[in-house]
Amino acid sequence: MNTLTQLPKATRNRMVQLLPLLKAWPSEKITSLDIGSSTNWKDTLIRHDFWLLGINKGVSNGYEVPELISSIEKALGLNSETTEAPASKKNCCIVGLGRLGAALLDYSLVDEKLFTIKAGFDSNLNRVEILRSIYPLYPATEMQFVIKKEKIEYAILTVQDKDAQQICNKLCSAGIKGIVNMTQVILKIPDGVDKEKVKIENLSIMNALKMVI
Amino acid sequence: MNTLTQLPKATRNRMVQLLPLLKAWPSEKITSLDIGSSTNWKDTLIRHDFWLLGINKGVSNGYEVPELISSIEKALGLNSETTEAPASKKNCCIVGLGRLGAALLDYSLVDEKLFTIKAGFDSNLNRVEILRSIYPLYPATEMQFVIKKEKIEYAILTVQDKDAQQICNKLCSAGIKGIVNMTQVILKIPDGVDKEKVKIENLSIMNALKMVI
Repeated sequence: MNTLTQLPKATRNRMVQLLPLLKAWPSEKITSLDIGSSTNWKDTLIRHDFWLLGINKGVSNGYEVPELISSIEKALGLNSETTEAPASKKNCCIVGLGRLGAALLDYSLVDEKLFTIKAGFDSNLNRVEILRSIYPLYPATEMQFVIKKEKIEYAILTVQDKDAQQICNKLCSAGIKGIVNMTQVILKIPDGVDKEKVKIENLSIMNALKMVI
Repeated sequence: MNTLTQLPKATRNRMVQLLPLLKAWPSEKITSLDIGSSTNWKDTLIRHDFWLLGINKGVSNGYEVPELISSIEKALGLNSETTEAPASKKNCCIVGLGRLGAALLDYSLVDEKLFTIKAGFDSNLNRVEILRSIYPLYPATEMQFVIKKEKIEYAILTVQDKDAQQICNKLCSAGIKGIVNMTQVILKIPDGVDKEKVKIENLSIMNALKMVI
């Protein structure tokens, strides 16, 4: 069962955050009260989230942690079992190789079992040539070609604000499905692209700083 | 009027995102429909947000952009006019100077009129000594002392996941008011610290990637 599209964003967000906690959980069982006290979310909210995911067992005596992880991964589409294809990593690229983008080329920041970086792009040809990386780097002019060739579906956008929308348009028309937007710009899906098919997650550090004031 | 504490988080989040759009807006007036078409937010939602902020004017013939910016900044506490002290920047630190943390030391990423980086911290003494930065860097052992001495109120947390909670505890007991959490860990405000007084904004890149799948 793929409940992916029906899940409210807030539920999805909590489940994504919950996974690392579950994976580090020291025992075989966990209750919604345990989760509540580790996260400050209400236990009723957590049980409702699980109910949305089709997880109904264990309310009284706790959930089996491995089962919970697998159910959540399945519901979020993070598990290869949800697709018919053999287990495959999701292909990403990093667009904009300034100091932040270059930092993200660091293996440990993005790579996990789930994702693989296929390319980095920058409009500065010099930077593309000089920057050391274990991933292939390309000039921005080759972006649309490489995205199609390497079957890249996800992009982390670390360009300057002034270039963000224009690059977003190119990513969308190249068929990108998801963008992690690290600029401060509110990105618009361009006309002619199905707005339901491209997910954008805003992750500006400046905006986050303003949120914690 | 300081409506800061009463604002729903979603409203606050939209207003934070709206500011760069307003600042780049090419004309003197903007309507909620203009904003709606630039953001894909419903115009009724935007008008409701503005109403929560106490902005009631201009529904029919548009809002004055400079007034709107100033009202939003005031409501979010981003404007020095809300405090009695003379205009002052908010002091931040970066905790964890791996490749990501080191990248954030880059002037253009964090600095703006609003924030100033006062310190970077890392548990690796070697890294602290070798890393080039225009900001002072300190070993993590001096963190609590420096935070108090430099009146640092906000922290960007870029440590490894396994160290995140422990460092969060130290930041909270040093009196930090806001943490931008770039780890995947769900941080808990430690016992003995007023949970209302510390804001945490989660900004894990890995989690964001999982959200756009």
